[in-house]
Amino acid sequence: MGSHDPIWRSSRNPIIPRDATPTSNGVFNSAAVPFGTGFAGVFRCDDRHRRMRLHTGFSGDGVSWQVKPEPIFFEIPDPQIEKPEYGYDPRVCRLDGRYYVTWCTGFHGPAIGLAVTDDFARFEMIENALLPYNRNGVLFPRRIGGKAMMLSRPSDNGHTPFGDIFLSQSDDLVHWGKHRHVMAGIQPWESTKIGAGPVPIETTEGWLLLYHGVLTSCSGYVYHAGVALLDLEQPWKVRRRAAAYILSPHETYERMGDVPNVVFPCAAIADPATGRIAVYYGAADTVTCLGFTTVEALFGHMEAFPS
Amino acid sequence: MGSHDPIWRSSRNPIIPRDATPTSNGVFNSAAVPFGTGFAGVFRCDDRHRRMRLHTGFSGDGVSWQVKPEPIFFEIPDPQIEKPEYGYDPRVCRLDGRYYVTWCTGFHGPAIGLAVTDDFARFEMIENALLPYNRNGVLFPRRIGGKAMMLSRPSDNGHTPFGDIFLSQSDDLVHWGKHRHVMAGIQPWESTKIGAGPVPIETTEGWLLLYHGVLTSCSGYVYHAGVALLDLEQPWKVRRRAAAYILSPHETYERMGDVPNVVFPCAAIADPATGRIAVYYGAADTVTCLGFTTVEALFGHMEAFPS
Amino acid sequence: MGSHDPIWRSSRNPIIPRDATPTSNGVFNSAAVPFGTGFAGVFRCDDRHRRMRLHTGFSGDGVSWQVKPEPIFFEIPDPQIEKPEYGYDPRVCRLDGRYYVTWCTGFHGPAIGLAVTDDFARFEMIENALLPYNRNGVLFPRRIGGKAMMLSRPSDNGHTPFGDIFLSQSDDLVHWGKHRHVMAGIQPWESTKIGAGPVPIETTEGWLLLYHGVLTSCSGYVYHAGVALLDLEQPWKVRRRAAAYILSPHETYERMGDVPNVVFPCAAIADPATGRIAVYYGAADTVTCLGFTTVEALFGHMEAFPS
Amino acid sequence: MGSHDPIWRSSRNPIIPRDATPTSNGVFNSAAVPFGTGFAGVFRCDDRHRRMRLHTGFSGDGVSWQVKPEPIFFEIPDPQIEKPEYGYDPRVCRLDGRYYVTWCTGFHGPAIGLAVTDDFARFEMIENALLPYNRNGVLFPRRIGGKAMMLSRPSDNGHTPFGDIFLSQSDDLVHWGKHRHVMAGIQPWESTKIGAGPVPIETTEGWLLLYHGVLTSCSGYVYHAGVALLDLEQPWKVRRRAAAYILSPHETYERMGDVPNVVFPCAAIADPATGRIAVYYGAADTVTCLGFTTVEALFGHMEAFPS
Amino acid sequence: MGSHDPIWRSSRNPIIPRDATPTSNGVFNSAAVPFGTGFAGVFRCDDRHRRMRLHTGFSGDGVSWQVKPEPIFFEIPDPQIEKPEYGYDPRVCRLDGRYYVTWCTGFHGPAIGLAVTDDFARFEMIENALLPYNRNGVLFPRRIGGKAMMLSRPSDNGHTPFGDIFLSQSDDLVHWGKHRHVMAGIQPWESTKIGAGPVPIETTEGWLLLYHGVLTSCSGYVYHAGVALLDLEQPWKVRRRAAAYILSPHETYERMGDVPNVVFPCAAIADPATGRIAVYYGAADTVTCLGFTTVEALFGHMEAFPS
Amino acid sequence: MGSHDPIWRSSRNPIIPRDATPTSNGVFNSAAVPFGTGFAGVFRCDDRHRRMRLHTGFSGDGVSWQVKPEPIFFEIPDPQIEKPEYGYDPRVCRLDGRYYVTWCTGFHGPAIGLAVTDDFARFEMIENALLPYNRNGVLFPRRIGGKAMMLSRPSDNGHTPFGDIFLSQSDDLVHWGKHRHVMAGIQPWESTKIGAGPVPIETTEGWLLLYHGVLTSCSGYVYHAGVALLDLEQPWKVRRRAAAYILSPHETYERMGDVPNVVFPCAAIADPATGRIAVYYGAADTVTCLGFTTVEALFGHMEAFPS
Repeated sequence: MGSHDPIWRSSRNPIIPRDATPTSNGVFNSAAVPFGTGFAGVFRCDDRHRRMRLHTGFSGDGVSWQVKPEPIFFEIPDPQIEKPEYGYDPRVCRLDGRYYVTWCTGFHGPAIGLAVTDDFARFEMIENALLPYNRNGVLFPRRIGGKAMMLSRPSDNGHTPFGDIFLSQSDDLVHWGKHRHVMAGIQPWESTKIGAGPVPIETTEGWLLLYHGVLTSCSGYVYHAGVALLDLEQPWKVRRRAAAYILSPHETYERMGDVPNVVFPCAAIADPATGRIAVYYGAADTVTCLGFTTVEALFGHMEAFPS
Repeated sequence: MGSHDPIWRSSRNPIIPRDATPTSNGVFNSAAVPFGTGFAGVFRCDDRHRRMRLHTGFSGDGVSWQVKPEPIFFEIPDPQIEKPEYGYDPRVCRLDGRYYVTWCTGFHGPAIGLAVTDDFARFEMIENALLPYNRNGVLFPRRIGGKAMMLSRPSDNGHTPFGDIFLSQSDDLVHWGKHRHVMAGIQPWESTKIGAGPVPIETTEGWLLLYHGVLTSCSGYVYHAGVALLDLEQPWKVRRRAAAYILSPHETYERMGDVPNVVFPCAAIADPATGRIAVYYGAADTVTCLGFTTVEALFGHMEAFPS
Repeated sequence: MGSHDPIWRSSRNPIIPRDATPTSNGVFNSAAVPFGTGFAGVFRCDDRHRRMRLHTGFSGDGVSWQVKPEPIFFEIPDPQIEKPEYGYDPRVCRLDGRYYVTWCTGFHGPAIGLAVTDDFARFEMIENALLPYNRNGVLFPRRIGGKAMMLSRPSDNGHTPFGDIFLSQSDDLVHWGKHRHVMAGIQPWESTKIGAGPVPIETTEGWLLLYHGVLTSCSGYVYHAGVALLDLEQPWKVRRRAAAYILSPHETYERMGDVPNVVFPCAAIADPATGRIAVYYGAADTVTCLGFTTVEALFGHMEAFPS
Repeated sequence: MGSHDPIWRSSRNPIIPRDATPTSNGVFNSAAVPFGTGFAGVFRCDDRHRRMRLHTGFSGDGVSWQVKPEPIFFEIPDPQIEKPEYGYDPRVCRLDGRYYVTWCTGFHGPAIGLAVTDDFARFEMIENALLPYNRNGVLFPRRIGGKAMMLSRPSDNGHTPFGDIFLSQSDDLVHWGKHRHVMAGIQPWESTKIGAGPVPIETTEGWLLLYHGVLTSCSGYVYHAGVALLDLEQPWKVRRRAAAYILSPHETYERMGDVPNVVFPCAAIADPATGRIAVYYGAADTVTCLGFTTVEALFGHMEAFPS
Repeated sequence: MGSHDPIWRSSRNPIIPRDATPTSNGVFNSAAVPFGTGFAGVFRCDDRHRRMRLHTGFSGDGVSWQVKPEPIFFEIPDPQIEKPEYGYDPRVCRLDGRYYVTWCTGFHGPAIGLAVTDDFARFEMIENALLPYNRNGVLFPRRIGGKAMMLSRPSDNGHTPFGDIFLSQSDDLVHWGKHRHVMAGIQPWESTKIGAGPVPIETTEGWLLLYHGVLTSCSGYVYHAGVALLDLEQPWKVRRRAAAYILSPHETYERMGDVPNVVFPCAAIADPATGRIAVYYGAADTVTCLGFTTVEALFGHMEAFPS
Repeated sequence: MGSHDPIWRSSRNPIIPRDATPTSNGVFNSAAVPFGTGFAGVFRCDDRHRRMRLHTGFSGDGVSWQVKPEPIFFEIPDPQIEKPEYGYDPRVCRLDGRYYVTWCTGFHGPAIGLAVTDDFARFEMIENALLPYNRNGVLFPRRIGGKAMMLSRPSDNGHTPFGDIFLSQSDDLVHWGKHRHVMAGIQPWESTKIGAGPVPIETTEGWLLLYHGVLTSCSGYVYHAGVALLDLEQPWKVRRRAAAYILSPHETYERMGDVPNVVFPCAAIADPATGRIAVYYGAADTVTCLGFTTVEALFGHMEAFPS
């Protein structure tokens, strides 16, 4: 199953069940990074109020995870900054030697929240990076031309039926500008909207961007994953892009859940030496899964299905 | 699975299959009561025209049911009363020594039908209690301050995207008034609409109300069940309410069916001596299921998740 | 202009301007009755917050009106009755020797409010007659078979795109039941929805019901007025009905205003001796107008355009 | 399971998996006909761009199929005919000794494409038979009164929420006229829209038409199959019609897939000697399935559930 | 006013008032042709049921019109042809020596009706030319390559929010095929949809096509008129097209009426000797107006505003 | 007329007609500032393609204007900045000694464009200040705490049915952050959405903000104007706000036009010595108008109608 796709699934999927914490309704669309001798992550744990909350989690091997039962407490240094009404779909990016969390935050509508941690214990909120209505804010793991760079997907205030990926630039991670349009959906699988997934992976040929793309069927949205290659120095320029998706909902845990037919990658851990990549993705808005690929497989896919 | 919830599922679920009668497409959202030495019930049996019909059923143990192959014939005493165009989502309430059936009836739009039986063989239609567009009419099992009381959820004429629970009062079960607003959806799991479920269960501290709450995902509605406690004497006043749901679609028979991701409780049989409660609920608009809880567990849940 | 219609417009139209009170944005969809030696009325005065409010007004000749600058204060005898969130589209009916006001009231959605006055100075709120979502509640001016009778138009919570006229019955004006379907839109001019207008006018052949009917153009709703004859004893039975409207927006004050293309009759004063009828109607949701017709003209119209 | 329905499923279902070709995302809603000593077919193979494409396939026994990895190339004889933007939901009809393919073609909107082949290797496009927006074009297998006849379902340009079956007539398969309305949805299972399925099957009493019917739930469309009997000489006249569906989504492969709850018949191979009929249907817009019935069973069903 | 546009309005506008017949609510979107020593026409006369009806009318000078009070009676030679449910937006085309009327006809949805007359007294219905859902069927005034040609605008069943102009061809005016896409909306004023207006006017350089184009504002549709030049021999090919509209609602009678902001041309009478053109257009879906232009002015406009 | 409102209209309204330039369809929603010995402005001139374009204009007295026939050419210093696809609803703000233009610009959706000029002849585009989808970007006329400040109204990509006013801060006018929520619609007249109007006017008590508020009727949007007072140092804090609008569409030129019932202020010229304010506002998306008020009148209004 899925053998034609350049991502192969972990046989231990879903690696994190729906009820990994005492109060969770689902654990999905979550982000993991290497941390210390193991891994740490920020997890979307919708609780049984169906409130969207962010939790930390830790793992020795990246597969077995302990998710904290309590949501992250964000310290807010400036009283003018409002407390997030909710948080979902986090990404974690190591940048300038610290760990930055971006997420979809409740700020009179969905917006891009930004916080920083060094230890996954204490999180300090920086300003919301971008105005509502926006989702899927993703940082690059190093400055480019001295600038921090963030991808995002401007939206509306509901189940947005449109959306392209844009890039914004910043010196101080507080003020953002020099906005660039990166790409729009082209193929049917991404025709409703697209959004950046994991933190881009640097290769000698460019930034590998995994992203999600949505198709609207007569029964709702279907979420797939795709891949593109962004220019190393001007990462708003798309150098290559696969016309065919790299992952689509096939397994029961991807097809059946609180939202059927969703695969939603939020993190990728790459081993530069071997080119191996582990992709963390949410399935059916209910559980967290793991898939494997390689830089070579992704480039092969982009060549096989040029856009 | 589901071990964090205060309701545990029968291992014999679904207790009534889709095709329990020769013509049924599904049997769900149905109501059971103690009757004679066993149990009787009114069942929603959509047929293979997908017409919504009400049937009776009988059981010795409350788990194995014989559903009658023919729909209920409602005798209509007054020729000014129109014959129901359809009937669905019934509730049965023992009141003033008789069995009253309320259901969503086709009266130029969905409205609250009301009929009475003594033997589950002969049913006499009283007047439609409330004008369209309304659904989820539920009687209280005794008069309060001399008044019969009915909960309902005013609606529109389609898949209504809003809805609160109201209460209406009557002396004669024909004329209703002194309408009171009871409660609206607060938490995300109930943010689209809510509706009363089984006939309220009397406790010394108030009326236990199980109800359904709907969340709108990008693939449609998700139906959960929740619990609240209404004032004993002024039952339009909410005394307690759990912020977390008590039941959510997790099992395959709740997630996959004619309408995915639905649990919809319509009846509860309580044993006052022990506080044990059996909850009958429809799953995926396809089959009938059974869950178990206790008064104590529900109060514990309301305390653990105060609203 | 309009000479083919059985209603002819007052040359003094609009008889009440938009800014008849110091705070009003518009004065329209209002109800007048004979009172003392002149006339009294309840007026919809949207203020410059665009809040919908009810005011009283008085007139010697029924054409020149003094509208009170302050909204009506409704006394509420029972603390369980909630204060109306807003009020609009009033009707006034003399019944059992008193003046009853029905209106669309804000009760967690639009519902039918009911209050009583003897002097148009002190108004006492009775219970809301009907649950939301409902509009255009209109009483009959005498009991029929001992019952008070009310027409209404069940709705949804927005600019409802559907709606039929129903009838409900009551002994005590508090509890309502024996609901009957009266009529639905048939012709294109009333194809979106219909709603009762003035208090029905008794004739020897039946109750003359003026009502509004809505057509949906590609630029929104167009409101017309029509006429039907209801059975004297079973007024939910339609005895005659004109297929052609009796009034349609033609004049600039009906075509241009806060809502273009609206004529909306809310009151009719009939002189039984002569059969002359004065019709008060709102125009363009902005001003109040007056039209004239006769019982004979309306019967002639129903004969000329049988439905 | 499903034992009450007049169609029984192949135990080898799904007979064609999702990934039957190296690039396919799904293989479904496809048409098979006897060809040579075996069977040939035209298959809807959505690729992993989720583009909708038509492929040929061949089988010895009608159950095991080899689907060609490359889409059909349509030769276009007249340069004024535009190349199809896409193709889906094909039917194949043997008429006048040749094989005609009809399908939903991309012609500035969905329209009815028409092509002819003798060998399932070379396909020549005739003109698009009908203007957009139209779907489900189905030919009759012989001329009637000298005319070729085609059923179709006029639509809009999206997930059309309405639709009846019409019939059009032609002498030359290029120009079509004498359009007739055949039937609209009547029962709840077909209340949203209906569309012709396989090429009609001739019987002495009329043309057996299998068709699909759609119901709109709060989670999207549910596709069922039904049966009607059309007049032999005036096939736009419905002689009989079953009120109950003949097939509805019950199996996991019908309930779970890229579009849940879809059964969509596109071909039927009848053995006139025995009356046995094999029905090819797409399931969940993902896989191809096989069901069995008989002429007798279908007539029995129409008698048991008269419309 | 409007002096920059290549069409100038008659000072006698509106030339036909709303109530030109005893039963009409509006007279608009109508077609006139030279006939005998004067002019004849087919008029859209919505009556006061707001039913859409076609009437004949006659004029000596083309400006003063007598519209018949009774709708056209269409003789239907073949009992298989259904009687039109309604008729609107007619065009009249002299072709092969007879007068053909095309209109939007009620045939289980809006479709293109076709009838023929020689004397504007007796009209015989030919078959509906095209399936629903279609509007704005317009014939060419001579055969091209031996074929009759018709423009149309495929639609949906409501206030269609999309629509391009297509062309269909016929030998016998009954069967139509060889469908070609002509043009889609490009500029903002025509971005929602476009539709052919009057019968195309032949010039040595091509067919002059006046057409309407619709923009969707936050208060509904705005209808403008534009001009294009179609190839003489392959009239589905657009040779020139003005990017700017030629007429837009400016006058009160175009801005205020049953549908505000509509100009809708349905007929043009050209004098080949002088190049003068009289354009009949409906205004605000209420009245009929006249505008003047010349072939030279239209070509000048296409040059000044190339597309 | 309008005498209760704190804004009185110029008797010369509309001061700029629809066709002020040879190609304009309308001239409205435009911004004027004192410049040299007279006034300069940036005008929204939709042309007769209905394209949205920005033009300059000049006036000696602020009432008679010469609008340039050619749109503004924006010089773009950085080739990474995309050329605006369109421009509308401009504001002009004198800040740091230069004139800054903000407008709704076409950048893969509506976004906030920003350009600078010294002479209203040469305009240089700075970066788009904010990502799509955003409208109504308005600068403050001086730095506050060293920061440039901009109000904006995040939106969706259509006729957005929601919207609050936010504030963003910048050091360099390129990078923006420290986003703050300013206010949402509260009263019915502003219940759909609100957006900042003219550049705020500094008073000793705070910044006077005129803004527009939208109500959705059954025939579309109605645009009103309102007033609030923002904190001098923390201008995202609302110190006072009038519950009643200050201007509403009443005059024919406000009620009838390409979009009926729109008043839309974009500029205000205040005379600090006298407190007199001239307000430029677009009417009916067609013409430009002028109204007069005073600081005193606006404060009086906020006191009379506290929010």
